[in-house]
Amino acid sequence: MTENSPAARLEARIADRRARIGVIGLGYFGSRHARIYADHPIADLVAVCDRDAARADEIGRSLGAQPYSDFRELLARPDIEAVSICLPDRLHVEAAVAAAEAGKAILLEKPLAHDTPSARKIVEAVEKAGVRLMIGHILRFDPRYVQVYEAATPEKLGEPIHLRAKRNGIRSVAARLGPATSILFYMGVHDVDAMQWIARSRISRVYAQKRQVLGTGNEDALYAVVNFENGAIGQIDYSWAWPDGLMNGYRCALEIVGTQSAAYLDCTDQGFYAVGEATTGADTHLWPEINGRITGDLADELNHFVVAVRTGRPFIQRYQEAFDAIPVLDALARSAETGQPVDVAR
Amino acid sequence: MTENSPAARLEARIADRRARIGVIGLGYFGSRHARIYADHPIADLVAVCDRDAARADEIGRSLGAQPYSDFRELLARPDIEAVSICLPDRLHVEAAVAAAEAGKAILLEKPLAHDTPSARKIVEAVEKAGVRLMIGHILRFDPRYVQVYEAATPEKLGEPIHLRAKRNGIRSVAARLGPATSILFYMGVHDVDAMQWIARSRISRVYAQKRQVLGTGNEDALYAVVNFENGAIGQIDYSWAWPDGLMNGYRCALEIVGTQSAAYLDCTDQGFYAVGEATTGADTHLWPEINGRITGDLADELNHFVVAVRTGRPFIQRYQEAFDAIPVLDALARSAETGQPVDVAR
Amino acid sequence: MTENSPAARLEARIADRRARIGVIGLGYFGSRHARIYADHPIADLVAVCDRDAARADEIGRSLGAQPYSDFRELLARPDIEAVSICLPDRLHVEAAVAAAEAGKAILLEKPLAHDTPSARKIVEAVEKAGVRLMIGHILRFDPRYVQVYEAATPEKLGEPIHLRAKRNGIRSVAARLGPATSILFYMGVHDVDAMQWIARSRISRVYAQKRQVLGTGNEDALYAVVNFENGAIGQIDYSWAWPDGLMNGYRCALEIVGTQSAAYLDCTDQGFYAVGEATTGADTHLWPEINGRITGDLADELNHFVVAVRTGRPFIQRYQEAFDAIPVLDALARSAETGQPVDVAR
Amino acid sequence: MTENSPAARLEARIADRRARIGVIGLGYFGSRHARIYADHPIADLVAVCDRDAARADEIGRSLGAQPYSDFRELLARPDIEAVSICLPDRLHVEAAVAAAEAGKAILLEKPLAHDTPSARKIVEAVEKAGVRLMIGHILRFDPRYVQVYEAATPEKLGEPIHLRAKRNGIRSVAARLGPATSILFYMGVHDVDAMQWIARSRISRVYAQKRQVLGTGNEDALYAVVNFENGAIGQIDYSWAWPDGLMNGYRCALEIVGTQSAAYLDCTDQGFYAVGEATTGADTHLWPEINGRITGDLADELNHFVVAVRTGRPFIQRYQEAFDAIPVLDALARSAETGQPVDVAR
Repeated sequence: MTENSPAARLEARIADRRARIGVIGLGYFGSRHARIYADHPIADLVAVCDRDAARADEIGRSLGAQPYSDFRELLARPDIEAVSICLPDRLHVEAAVAAAEAGKAILLEKPLAHDTPSARKIVEAVEKAGVRLMIGHILRFDPRYVQVYEAATPEKLGEPIHLRAKRNGIRSVAARLGPATSILFYMGVHDVDAMQWIARSRISRVYAQKRQVLGTGNEDALYAVVNFENGAIGQIDYSWAWPDGLMNGYRCALEIVGTQSAAYLDCTDQGFYAVGEATTGADTHLWPEINGRITGDLADELNHFVVAVRTGRPFIQRYQEAFDAIPVLDALARSAETGQPVDVAR
Repeated sequence: MTENSPAARLEARIADRRARIGVIGLGYFGSRHARIYADHPIADLVAVCDRDAARADEIGRSLGAQPYSDFRELLARPDIEAVSICLPDRLHVEAAVAAAEAGKAILLEKPLAHDTPSARKIVEAVEKAGVRLMIGHILRFDPRYVQVYEAATPEKLGEPIHLRAKRNGIRSVAARLGPATSILFYMGVHDVDAMQWIARSRISRVYAQKRQVLGTGNEDALYAVVNFENGAIGQIDYSWAWPDGLMNGYRCALEIVGTQSAAYLDCTDQGFYAVGEATTGADTHLWPEINGRITGDLADELNHFVVAVRTGRPFIQRYQEAFDAIPVLDALARSAETGQPVDVAR
Repeated sequence: MTENSPAARLEARIADRRARIGVIGLGYFGSRHARIYADHPIADLVAVCDRDAARADEIGRSLGAQPYSDFRELLARPDIEAVSICLPDRLHVEAAVAAAEAGKAILLEKPLAHDTPSARKIVEAVEKAGVRLMIGHILRFDPRYVQVYEAATPEKLGEPIHLRAKRNGIRSVAARLGPATSILFYMGVHDVDAMQWIARSRISRVYAQKRQVLGTGNEDALYAVVNFENGAIGQIDYSWAWPDGLMNGYRCALEIVGTQSAAYLDCTDQGFYAVGEATTGADTHLWPEINGRITGDLADELNHFVVAVRTGRPFIQRYQEAFDAIPVLDALARSAETGQPVDVAR
Repeated sequence: MTENSPAARLEARIADRRARIGVIGLGYFGSRHARIYADHPIADLVAVCDRDAARADEIGRSLGAQPYSDFRELLARPDIEAVSICLPDRLHVEAAVAAAEAGKAILLEKPLAHDTPSARKIVEAVEKAGVRLMIGHILRFDPRYVQVYEAATPEKLGEPIHLRAKRNGIRSVAARLGPATSILFYMGVHDVDAMQWIARSRISRVYAQKRQVLGTGNEDALYAVVNFENGAIGQIDYSWAWPDGLMNGYRCALEIVGTQSAAYLDCTDQGFYAVGEATTGADTHLWPEINGRITGDLADELNHFVVAVRTGRPFIQRYQEAFDAIPVLDALARSAETGQPVDVAR
């Protein structure tokens, strides 16, 4: 068939119905992205990349994808239309800019970047290249958070008075991640984004205190009080200091109280308990593996990315909203360093 | 293009990648099936049917599907490959047999049928026609139930000692459904299937008592004690008598205790609360509508059906397992009538 | 002072303001009774008794009470006005009859007796002697149960439709108690009493199934469906088979649904969690030891006994109500043996 | 009998065994204090006082106590040994100083006073008069808080890393109390005391933000981050802005994470639910009224006071610890006013 024959055009249309995807970075999240794409009805996982070539080989083989250890080689493939970037925070800017320049649609695991200047570079590269960018803010796909968001419309809630967000994890995760990230950029970005989204307002001023005594290589905890542009006050509670025996491995919550009503969520109870030498739980929301597949919020997020890429539908979160969390994290870091309130520089 | 031209064959392959589906019965569940298919990456909702022609028209128009008021006309369309049947229990046998005879793959909302002879007719029709049949046992797609199932392997659990299942709803639902179903076939089939699946054993003997004083047109409650073939004992707690103010509108639970370990789930806490004149909840698991779409267990179930139909992969539940619940429901009904223990006739 | 001098009479009045109490049986509960009396503002723990003389000596010394190893010697002391009997079930009848004959006010730990004939003997001895008898039904002093009781008045609840009670414990307790009791008389009596109290009606017919495979020397589990005289149906869920790692060591619940409203309690969440190698809980209701004292339901129960003995006020539960639970337990045992429904013999 | 006759001395000893008590202030808490004393085995409620003479008459009559509308008259009675002071915060100093000068043992409802200078005056008056003073910090008698305290010994917890306390109530209470108190002195004192007690360390620096838009006459919410002398960081979450439909009317929690382990409590679930037009709860811990009496934490607190007064035993909390909360509240108020971190002046 020649390139312009009707048959060739039809063949192209067949191919075109499926999204050809590569995954860059095969750690905890990247390997899950790869598995989800490999199982998606209209995605083809065609390539995976990790600087650990053996890991890339193994995952590539098991999922039928070409392995790479250099993401630039993966990005050079013209048949790949979209990529998930699941690298450590500090490597986001280089990979995301390269992906933009290569013309790929990008699903970039949160945080957008590890500081405001890097975030800006990514946004500029994306806008210059005219490619699509979605940040992996999984809470936007968590029914509990979305229910709070929908209960907090101005019509129902009135004016927001105060919001509180909690995200606590266990110390072995802090030790495992080491200097690859920080409590603010690993955990904090979730809740800063969620609070601004749900409050329909941005954070303008912050005050934070932190601790670092466990020696995990990361902060143990960071507590903050924040102000929103609309007058609401907020409270943030991040910890990576919980003992590893914490039920389900994490605790998170969010609440918003308005002049007319209020709404809250609490993830402590996941609805499932196993009882042996102790009582333990299991994930039933984020990325539970059931029936041999990864389901839940992460699968829904990746499905949204694939479908939006294929259909041209808008992402439910514009990247500008994700960007808006980064200066808040920078301000929180500065406040925790100086012990003084800090205005968010936008 | 002629039918055998290369272009026609390619066009056919394009079409072939998508499942062309019809939905029969547009009540609470049928309308949700229709919306989920209409939004699915590889499903085309091509037809909907309700004996209320106006309802079929309205839903068909909003979702871009051809409306029918006679399911036999829908089934006569050769381009429709698969159907969801979401009719009242007593109408299952006629529609399912017709769908089988029309050669369609069938997703039949639970229960398989409203009694054992009808269930047998459906199974025979399906086997004779050589079509595929999946029963809508949504708990097989609920992470909480699947986590219990996976915690209850013989290696982990040892021998099952006892199991308890609870499914309670509100009285206005009982009144709304009226004589279209019964507490056993509407609620009970969920848990009889789940208990037999999780216990890896079938129920062999039952004893039940029921109440009917609220005047909803349905039973208010049915309590039972059952025996499993493997020696385990079980307890079943069905109620449709809760006041409508019940948080989230339902309560369900399942637990299994074995010689080595135990596991349980409880759906009371859905993790989300809205506070106004009272504190209320919202669905975060079954079929939550978030971001303008229906997600959760029901969406995952329909995705499984579509993908399995397209790829030829097996359904995670064989219809024989679904069939195995029906004689238990019949026995429970008989015991509740007679006040005596009843052996399950298989 | 002579015995009839005014000073002697006043001295007697001083003594009289305090209840002089002995505790018979110093196991798990008896030792707690002793500690609570020793700390009570108007009780004097004057004697303790255990057939293990060393244990009686040790506890007597630590609490300033005279130790006995023969309860008849303790009962022979005329200065002791009231006794707690905390012996194994099968020894209740002998000790309670002796205490009645000795003219003591009696707090008899539940169950009243280990079968209906024994219960009858105790009641007859008490009535003949004209002494006061209170059964240690601690749930009557648990705010959660009393709140359900008060929410279930006919005015609020309407007519009871169905009730469910759950009491589950861990297997090591079953093994520790061995043949000294049974699942019905140790656990079951709590809920049979509570259900009849809250339903304002007695159980008239029962059906039960049980398991005994763990080899603890006790039943592992007993499931039952029951009928009440007022038409309500009930469900009972007893287990001693849970692994020892069960959070808080027990699970209990009770719910009642009526024609107008409903109420329920669940003891799974005690409000307190400790996190180390696992997440565990602690008692915050039954008999928590806080600030160096035993508080909670058990302390409130014993306070009620002491004050009622001193003031002549009626006990909140008449012993006839406690008696009414025993024939139900007998019927449940018979049904579990025969596999047939059994009418309760009153 | 003459005053020194043996009979008179014995009569005095009889009387002496009971604590003769007056209650000053008969609002929400004072009326409960009065009822609890009236029912206590060794307390005699002899007098009650409210500036609303009709209210004093009514409560006095119903409980058999002499009514007063001027607390100085009540304090002038030499037969009254101890008083509960349950007045609005700002009136504490005058009444408590007068009670001290009158030689009474004092149970002063929290907060000790409405600012640091007033607290100091009370302490000085108590020390000068040599009377006993207990502050009504009810959390010291709540099993959930005491369990956290006992789980947080240095041996178990290691070094405290971070603590969080939450106390949220409904807006109608804020409106009812009006200017009689403030969010910090009504709610805040509970948690500042509890945090310092459980952390075994005092708060040294604070930062707070508050809101006041609902127009209840009180603050709607106050969020703070604090530092402890031992290096721990803390977070405080006070709100009076929740809609009145909040389940149980309040939400509170406390958690502490240390270098070795962690512990937390959450009061959201009280274990009891009533279901009618909505699902509601009821108090099962603080001061539940069951069996016609007030039980729970408040009753245990007042029992502790009575017994300690009668026996001379020490109070479980020294008033100096209660005093230590007041400068923190002052600092929080100042920080919320100025928007700057404030060092606690001790």
